[in-house]
Amino acid sequence: MQPFILDERLGRDSESILKLGLCDLRLARDSRWPWLILVPQRPDVSEIFDLTPLDQAVLTFEQVTVGAALKKATGAEKINIAAIGNIVRQLHVHVVARFENDPNWPGPIWGFEKPIPYQEETFQAMKNRILEAFQ
Amino acid sequence: MQPFILDERLGRDSESILKLGLCDLRLARDSRWPWLILVPQRPDVSEIFDLTPLDQAVLTFEQVTVGAALKKATGAEKINIAAIGNIVRQLHVHVVARFENDPNWPGPIWGFEKPIPYQEETFQAMKNRILEAFQ
Repeated sequence: MQPFILDERLGRDSESILKLGLCDLRLARDSRWPWLILVPQRPDVSEIFDLTPLDQAVLTFEQVTVGAALKKATGAEKINIAAIGNIVRQLHVHVVARFENDPNWPGPIWGFEKPIPYQEETFQAMKNRILEAFQ
Repeated sequence: MQPFILDERLGRDSESILKLGLCDLRLARDSRWPWLILVPQRPDVSEIFDLTPLDQAVLTFEQVTVGAALKKATGAEKINIAAIGNIVRQLHVHVVARFENDPNWPGPIWGFEKPIPYQEETFQAMKNRILEAFQ
């Protein structure tokens, strides 16, 4: 079997914060909104329906767990969950905390202007806040 | 138990084409892209993690079935799947067929300009093409 290799752009734009059963859970390097990305560690998959049924079920479980934790950690008004992948074809699922005063509410985050990087300290604080919400 | 009542805006912007085990499958009245909407027929749910675990599993199964059928029916370059709901809070999942020559490729469809209604005949043809792909 081919090994799983993380897409280069996903690697550049986000940092791994936790390995789940199926997915690498990553925090996007964009301080405009708390933005997590779940990457199923499977080679050559770009659509959810390309995963095996078991992997689909696990992905759902991980999405739900991560979505609920992100809501708890941030007090978001709404969690946005999406598998788009028009640019980066490696299957990845966005889980984003949205607020009524965020820069593009109620529009989507994808394709909206440029990321604003975190200060290192703020990134670590966000990461810790999210990881604590899993407990 | 409270009955499920479809959100008024979802009712206006899309038309039911099939009832699945959990979801009402609806085709958006927007000819710019083949755009399906799955609405779990459960009252008072706005996040996927508000559904019971069984409903989450069924939703995943229906999403995957619908996504694969839409790809087969349209030959799309990429299927976009998303639960956003910043405006309409009733849980609904978008399943959209995207093409490299569509009006906002590779950007997202949500919040992009105005819907272009189908001609009645074209709507029926799209509906039939999608329903046939389930067989």
